Amino acid sequence: MTDNDSGDFHERIHQNFARQAALHSLGAELTRIERAMVEIELPFDVKLTQQHGILHAGVISAALDSACGFAAYSVIDAEASILTIEFKVNLLSPGRGDRFLFRGEITKPGSNIIVADGRGYAIGDGPAKLIASMTSTMMIIRGREGISG
Amino acid sequence: MTDNDSGDFHERIHQNFARQAALHSLGAELTRIERAMVEIELPFDVKLTQQHGILHAGVISAALDSACGFAAYSVIDAEASILTIEFKVNLLSPGRGDRFLFRGEITKPGSNIIVADGRGYAIGDGPAKLIASMTSTMMIIRGREGISG
Amino acid sequence: MTDNDSGDFHERIHQNFARQAALHSLGAELTRIERAMVEIELPFDVKLTQQHGILHAGVISAALDSACGFAAYSVIDAEASILTIEFKVNLLSPGRGDRFLFRGEITKPGSNIIVADGRGYAIGDGPAKLIASMTSTMMIIRGREGISG
Amino acid sequence: MTDNDSGDFHERIHQNFARQAALHSLGAELTRIERAMVEIELPFDVKLTQQHGILHAGVISAALDSACGFAAYSVIDAEASILTIEFKVNLLSPGRGDRFLFRGEITKPGSNIIVADGRGYAIGDGPAKLIASMTSTMMIIRGREGISG
Repeated sequence: MTDNDSGDFHERIHQNFARQAALHSLGAELTRIERAMVEIELPFDVKLTQQHGILHAGVISAALDSACGFAAYSVIDAEASILTIEFKVNLLSPGRGDRFLFRGEITKPGSNIIVADGRGYAIGDGPAKLIASMTSTMMIIRGREGISG
Repeated sequence: MTDNDSGDFHERIHQNFARQAALHSLGAELTRIERAMVEIELPFDVKLTQQHGILHAGVISAALDSACGFAAYSVIDAEASILTIEFKVNLLSPGRGDRFLFRGEITKPGSNIIVADGRGYAIGDGPAKLIASMTSTMMIIRGREGISG
Repeated sequence: MTDNDSGDFHERIHQNFARQAALHSLGAELTRIERAMVEIELPFDVKLTQQHGILHAGVISAALDSACGFAAYSVIDAEASILTIEFKVNLLSPGRGDRFLFRGEITKPGSNIIVADGRGYAIGDGPAKLIASMTSTMMIIRGREGISG
Repeated sequence: MTDNDSGDFHERIHQNFARQAALHSLGAELTRIERAMVEIELPFDVKLTQQHGILHAGVISAALDSACGFAAYSVIDAEASILTIEFKVNLLSPGRGDRFLFRGEITKPGSNIIVADGRGYAIGDGPAKLIASMTSTMMIIRGREGISG
């Protein structure tokens, strides 16, 4: 972990989020930023669905990947950047609900590689329902032109 | 493999594609349908990018998941349906290009579980560049109300 | 979840473990069985190492797969059986220690598919160290001759 | 890719294999070494089985991880080393046969990260049968004491 003060990583994650065109077109909001844990929320929208009327796996992947990535930004130096190498998504229950919550948490911070786990939940009338999990492997990038964070 | 005649699975895959709101909002087109192999193409659009200006991992996941899923529809009975259980995506090179091609191919057809592998390519001036790979595990659903394919 | 009484699943998991030749040749012991959570332990042995003298990834996979599989046996009917469809392993830190602990926990029980998460730890003089994580997707098998659990 | 002459990587892979205690205790043999592609073979042995009498997933993982890792050694500098970060295994058919063949191939060589795909086959009286696939993400290690390749 680095010595970033907390104001710093909050601001950098918000700026980073502001540049993510794909997330905005989904209607995503950054609702919680802690060191090593970030949450993104998404209201239901029919344009986010697949043929069965449930949240599309690509939307779930985008939101979980972003939550894991932002969690990684909270544990690296201000001048470093994050690149996702790979992730695995398990689709556990159909994504039906009024809103969706996606949480990314750092499982293993490292000097080169960061591993995070993410969980997605559908939120409606009843209790939150676990709809998806992700494990994501990311690489810390330093000083590579054109990919500044 | 089933005895579907080829016209049948072509039509079902096109109908299925027509119902996928999330894919349409990406600008995706179904460009090739063979038994056990389907291709989807996507023109570059700035709204599909993440903070570095390259194709968002969620978009890549959506397109590869769909290509793998449609390939699965080509090897199942007409009345059955496909549900993705899980997938893994490796992001191999930054997604920069004029167009993107996503191919899904069946690795292992089964009576309950189908495994497919997908590859994504960026297409521009030079040779096509491999940008991502996916392995996807899907389940064949039969007669479950409300999830008819 | 099923109505198995707890004595039942304990016994079935012990019997299942007794039949796993590959686990015995690793020196593995079943050290904890709860509903939806099972632990396996392994003393360090040079024959379990790879070229850097650390625990081989295949050994870690075998132990985590078994811990996840046994956890699945604790939540299914006595006559059903479990087959692993796929898993992902992240190797988080080098496997160095006197003993290793592998825990499998059920993330999502289902009527056909069970998803479990596993964690592996190295245990030595200091605090336990997280060395690996797994997400495993399993299928419940009923009445298929020759694969009875 | 590097300028290693081919004799060099052959020899380094054989030396590396000779140091892998876990592979030897499985009975594995290195049967083919090409640049970016390596094969390992394994005769059937009851001690490699799980409770259904088929090849244990951990054995399959060990063999595929090794085949992918050795393939990576064939495309890096002589003084560099390979560390597996993560892999995903799909178990496609029960591992029954007289012998098993595991092939690792480089999908994406890189300056820091190498991605390989592996396939495992059961070999008996009939045609070779695909039993498993792997995607593996590895990191190139340079000059880190105690992990020399």
